[in-house]
Amino acid sequence: MASSDTRPEAAVVLLSGGLDSTTLLHHVVKRLGRAPVHVLSILYGQRHARELECARYQAHALAVAVHRVVDMAFLGDLIRPGSALIEGGSEVPNLEDIPADRLDQPPTYVPNRNMMLLAVAAAYAEAHGIGDVFYGAQAQDEYGYWDCTAAFIERLNAVLALNRGRAVQVHAPFVAMKKAEILHGGLELGVDYGRTWSCYRGGATACGTCPTCVERRAAFAANGVDDPLEYEDAPRRP
Amino acid sequence: MASSDTRPEAAVVLLSGGLDSTTLLHHVVKRLGRAPVHVLSILYGQRHARELECARYQAHALAVAVHRVVDMAFLGDLIRPGSALIEGGSEVPNLEDIPADRLDQPPTYVPNRNMMLLAVAAAYAEAHGIGDVFYGAQAQDEYGYWDCTAAFIERLNAVLALNRGRAVQVHAPFVAMKKAEILHGGLELGVDYGRTWSCYRGGATACGTCPTCVERRAAFAANGVDDPLEYEDAPRRP
Repeated sequence: MASSDTRPEAAVVLLSGGLDSTTLLHHVVKRLGRAPVHVLSILYGQRHARELECARYQAHALAVAVHRVVDMAFLGDLIRPGSALIEGGSEVPNLEDIPADRLDQPPTYVPNRNMMLLAVAAAYAEAHGIGDVFYGAQAQDEYGYWDCTAAFIERLNAVLALNRGRAVQVHAPFVAMKKAEILHGGLELGVDYGRTWSCYRGGATACGTCPTCVERRAAFAANGVDDPLEYEDAPRRP
Repeated sequence: MASSDTRPEAAVVLLSGGLDSTTLLHHVVKRLGRAPVHVLSILYGQRHARELECARYQAHALAVAVHRVVDMAFLGDLIRPGSALIEGGSEVPNLEDIPADRLDQPPTYVPNRNMMLLAVAAAYAEAHGIGDVFYGAQAQDEYGYWDCTAAFIERLNAVLALNRGRAVQVHAPFVAMKKAEILHGGLELGVDYGRTWSCYRGGATACGTCPTCVERRAAFAANGVDDPLEYEDAPRRP
């Protein structure tokens, strides 16, 4: 995991229940040893709120010190017109249907989401005397979000550095990694990916065609491993 | 009002119901003319939630296009240990009792509050196609907060500038002004300060001795004008 050598005395981890943040949590728990890990999962009106069930499972399985599910579902109502990821917003497109000139800010982008989530995580950390927040931003291969970039983290930390008391620092150790690399590390850590959720459509079965399903499946294929999740367009055979 | 010459086509204003943000709203409404002003007021667990009654009054009196009161009271529970301003947190101190070395981050500081509020306001603005967010940060005379400084705004805008679609900009036109100057401008605009609330203690009557009461009273005194609010330690005579 790319980050500094000093081991934090405690950490806050933002956990969605998806592949990246679940892998990150496993890394952080391993690295911190007995130091307390506080996990925050945030309901922000996403269609795929079922990812939070996976978050609960993973946090429980790792016996983290604290897991709080923060209900910010009111955000759905505030920002609905801006995103396909929000319950009631426009339809989630298949990756192949997103025009090339929209791939850098696709319809699945949620306006300023990560600043909101990280601001809350930093506030929680500061109030509890914790200096480090980890989040699972990752350099997507085929599409992208400005608030998942190294520049975003760097500039956000430049804001937080102005704090006159405890300046919380945000770490995104996967920010320069591809999903296949993240998955590779997670498989070595024994992460149960059958209890992670990625699909943006949030149905009972993963769709297999939305941007994050496509990316996830490619990551499993690149690692030569079967994805334990079932997909609508290719039911898993027992 | 210090800001650029171009008039926004619409704006979002963060309105607490206090002296500064109420004055700001009056300025913005005047400047925008018929262009829609969207007002957000945020409940974040503050003791003085009664300021929101004033926010409702002011938004209604100015007939703004939209006024939304966003309930983020769950934050109180998340960040309580970190602030005297939060319901159930430590006691609000009198200004005179705050040690000199704490005046730059006093007990009334709320961990990362302004980044949270501005992140939500920027998300709302972006989702609604609005490029400008106004907030009433002000350079306090006797105590201060890192998230009310020009550097904070500048760095926050540097983060938002990374947006690949609409980059929302935050404006804090009062950031270099003292409260007496802000009040001076507001009195010229005819702001009804009897319908604003400042006191951090949030009782039925303003205490007169908490940091913001002291500052507010000094601003009225500097303008040679009576504060229309009643104070506990000096009841107003009819």
